[in-house]
Amino acid sequence: MQLTRAADYAVRVMITLAGMPSGARASRESLAESAEVPSQFLGKVLQLLTRSQLIVSHRGSRGGFSLARPASTISMLDVVESIEGPIQLNVCLGQEDACGRRWFCSAHEVWLTAQAVLSGVLSSAKLDRLAADSHHRRQVSAPAPVRVEEIAWS
Amino acid sequence: MQLTRAADYAVRVMITLAGMPSGARASRESLAESAEVPSQFLGKVLQLLTRSQLIVSHRGSRGGFSLARPASTISMLDVVESIEGPIQLNVCLGQEDACGRRWFCSAHEVWLTAQAVLSGVLSSAKLDRLAADSHHRRQVSAPAPVRVEEIAWS
Repeated sequence: MQLTRAADYAVRVMITLAGMPSGARASRESLAESAEVPSQFLGKVLQLLTRSQLIVSHRGSRGGFSLARPASTISMLDVVESIEGPIQLNVCLGQEDACGRRWFCSAHEVWLTAQAVLSGVLSSAKLDRLAADSHHRRQVSAPAPVRVEEIAWS
Repeated sequence: MQLTRAADYAVRVMITLAGMPSGARASRESLAESAEVPSQFLGKVLQLLTRSQLIVSHRGSRGGFSLARPASTISMLDVVESIEGPIQLNVCLGQEDACGRRWFCSAHEVWLTAQAVLSGVLSSAKLDRLAADSHHRRQVSAPAPVRVEEIAWS
């Protein structure tokens, strides 16, 4: 029960795009660097985000990637589901006939609740706030630079 | 981000054991049947539940499996973690050095919250209540038997 690496990378990419100045576009190379996403993953991630209409790929000399709509309207749930499909914590939460024990199984109700609270947290986390938070943290709590003598004697 | 089939089966097995009369023991065959767990999975599931000290395997003519402690003290979280290990919704929630972006990444906080609420729901779902709920539902809402003429003409 763990997020795929691709979905984790997609969240990084989307927060990076949300943190750019309005109207700016990011090249594939700059996204790979700032979101720290291995290049072999980035192509597939960008393809899925484009297909889900969360980002737009612009061509030409001023080309690159940008969000397809305001960051305040895109949640972490949107991003995760664009990569993994609809969240489904257990097989039994699928279509009506996914599990023949549903009519009596008390665990089914617990999974429903667990999925609802998980989705609720991800759904309320919007990209504009996430980008602003990350920017703020970088400003106020950047790790102290290591002094030369510490390197020399460590 | 989905529960493994083994963990789903483990939950079924544990609710079945929790629903038995006090002091009763279930054979492997009866567990497979009542929890509807394929026999090729059951051995591994029972092994992991035993290793986690959630169930006890009794030998001899009155042998079989039973819960190792009162059902009211065992949660769905205990059962899931006995199979899958500690819940870790994203890689970044692992050990301190699991992700170098943790000091500024705002998504990390969201994953922490999501994991806490998910674990909270599973932790509050105790086996005694789950077994009683399932028993009650079977009593009051068993599917109506299909009449012979419905079969003949369907």
